[in-house]
Amino acid sequence: MPSPLESCRQTLGPLDTHAVDAATSRWDTLTKPRGSLGRLEALACRVAGITGQVRPRLAERLVFVLAGDHGVTAEGVSAYPADVTAQMVYNFVRGGAAINVLARQVGARVIVVDMGVDAELPSLPALVAKKVRRGTWNFARQAAMTPEEALGCVETGMGLAEAEIMQRPSWVVTGDMGIGNTTASSAIIATMTGTPVERVTGRGTGVSGAALARKAAVIKEALDRHQPRAEDALDVLSKVGGFEIGGLAGIILGAAERRCPVILDGLIATAAALLAVGLVPAVRDYLIAGHRSIEPGHTVALQALGLEPVLDLEMRLGEGSGGVLALPVLEAACRLLDEMATFEEAGVATDDPDRPPTADASS
Amino acid sequence: MPSPLESCRQTLGPLDTHAVDAATSRWDTLTKPRGSLGRLEALACRVAGITGQVRPRLAERLVFVLAGDHGVTAEGVSAYPADVTAQMVYNFVRGGAAINVLARQVGARVIVVDMGVDAELPSLPALVAKKVRRGTWNFARQAAMTPEEALGCVETGMGLAEAEIMQRPSWVVTGDMGIGNTTASSAIIATMTGTPVERVTGRGTGVSGAALARKAAVIKEALDRHQPRAEDALDVLSKVGGFEIGGLAGIILGAAERRCPVILDGLIATAAALLAVGLVPAVRDYLIAGHRSIEPGHTVALQALGLEPVLDLEMRLGEGSGGVLALPVLEAACRLLDEMATFEEAGVATDDPDRPPTADASS
Repeated sequence: MPSPLESCRQTLGPLDTHAVDAATSRWDTLTKPRGSLGRLEALACRVAGITGQVRPRLAERLVFVLAGDHGVTAEGVSAYPADVTAQMVYNFVRGGAAINVLARQVGARVIVVDMGVDAELPSLPALVAKKVRRGTWNFARQAAMTPEEALGCVETGMGLAEAEIMQRPSWVVTGDMGIGNTTASSAIIATMTGTPVERVTGRGTGVSGAALARKAAVIKEALDRHQPRAEDALDVLSKVGGFEIGGLAGIILGAAERRCPVILDGLIATAAALLAVGLVPAVRDYLIAGHRSIEPGHTVALQALGLEPVLDLEMRLGEGSGGVLALPVLEAACRLLDEMATFEEAGVATDDPDRPPTADASS
Repeated sequence: MPSPLESCRQTLGPLDTHAVDAATSRWDTLTKPRGSLGRLEALACRVAGITGQVRPRLAERLVFVLAGDHGVTAEGVSAYPADVTAQMVYNFVRGGAAINVLARQVGARVIVVDMGVDAELPSLPALVAKKVRRGTWNFARQAAMTPEEALGCVETGMGLAEAEIMQRPSWVVTGDMGIGNTTASSAIIATMTGTPVERVTGRGTGVSGAALARKAAVIKEALDRHQPRAEDALDVLSKVGGFEIGGLAGIILGAAERRCPVILDGLIATAAALLAVGLVPAVRDYLIAGHRSIEPGHTVALQALGLEPVLDLEMRLGEGSGGVLALPVLEAACRLLDEMATFEEAGVATDDPDRPPTADASS
């Protein structure tokens, strides 16, 4: 039997072009000037292609928030102590974090997963326990994880998608929590896109000046030491990644296998997406960028993936916040495609002289 | 007794700076890196200042869709026949237009108003009859309306805000329908901002090539002929405006008087906002730009008003669509400010060494 990853590689197909074409044609029958809904039209067509539905209506909204700690925080790369990862997991479970507020607003279910938090977390009904270990090793000194752990966390993510996506298709948003994970993500993005470290390293939760220079230097030295191979995403993940990042790559693959659109949040989610595309290139078409973070590496990663974000609000929070915030816009695109009256139904004249209205407008 | 407009001019005050300051301080107590919610933080503070609430929660969502026809369509400035204005009013009333779909999604009430449609519309419960007359005069030949009509449609808009805003504060979105109204709006924007006509004239519903050049020439000749005075917004409205545009200016003023945030849609709404600010400069701070339309004049008008739009999705539909689409983002900003746990409540360490967490994170 092939492994889950091998099976995904073999079976994940391209978008449903019939659905895309039919959705594209339908837009031009709806009561509006052609193309006047701008990017909403293309976004809904993308969702049509992903789901195979010409007028896609999605069942559930799921936000996966994967948490993990990072040994590299020992190098002083973050403005916050590593303890905050565990503290924020409690905050997620209690419903007090930004992602909880945003999810409540749109009726999304938040699935909080311990992929490798550096704390003994108690068994809680609202917390999915998938801890690989209490934080990665410090990649300034050694590989972040073993190759087996790298594959394992991707397959754990795929398993989470299988277990949690109960209705198809559903919206899937990728979120993260992990002090130090902008450092790991910048290292991944530098490697996968072949971009100089300085261009992809940003302030994260709030480092600046000498601390920011130190963060870039730590990444640069680690890449020099480990020489991760861009053509082997698992190698990159094991050398400079994180457990939650590998898990997100798995969720992205598992969601795409179930023909669910994946709404990426910011830097960390997009680093995970680069790994997922490295593992299974066909997954690229299932991705939607929820927003553009102010982290410079995020824009580099989006360009490499050919993605234009839905929102650009200068955010840099993570947790899936920028992904969930984009959900109402994406749902609006699908609702418009589904619910708007056609020119014929509404008896409205078109700009096409060959297609006069047939109904009586004054009836 | 002063007129409604004079009364607004005398009483409309600045934002509540105490509420803005308290909201700004509250953001820094919430469980997230400082400033990491980006523009959401500033937007919620703006709403705090408008409403006077430190943690603003708004009651209702209202979308005013004002419809009117334009005599200038006789010059061939639009891709659609003028009949479409009335046909779309029927579509609004039946719930088949884009704005209806978007409003249903967010639970907004759509108020459709006939400000001057060139058709004898029947009396319908879902249609507010405020017809000034069946379309403006062709401003390529004469002023669009009399000075009395210009003042009248602004005061009608103020009256609509008074009649329809039943709970305060509520979100107010400005929408429009009127074949030919991008021509009128571009003329207003050119005048009010002192910008060359070519820079503010776009494709509208879909003109291009020679028709686009003709549209700009019609506007240019009209401005040369009528010499509207930028310092007198009613003069501009009467010479090159529209009944629905004047009505929207009145709704903007009436909403601000009731301390409601006004979410502007695109070109037409922003032209109306320029008129409203011309009439009562203090109203500027009550405006939020929902989106950036691809109409070039819209960006010029936004810059003149000092507004940065929430969304940028290359739309050009009108009806209030870009305003309603921004509502979930604005509501998210307010919910986050209100509902997120503080560092102290959640027992999360901050990046401020003087403010350690007080609760037990592992409890």
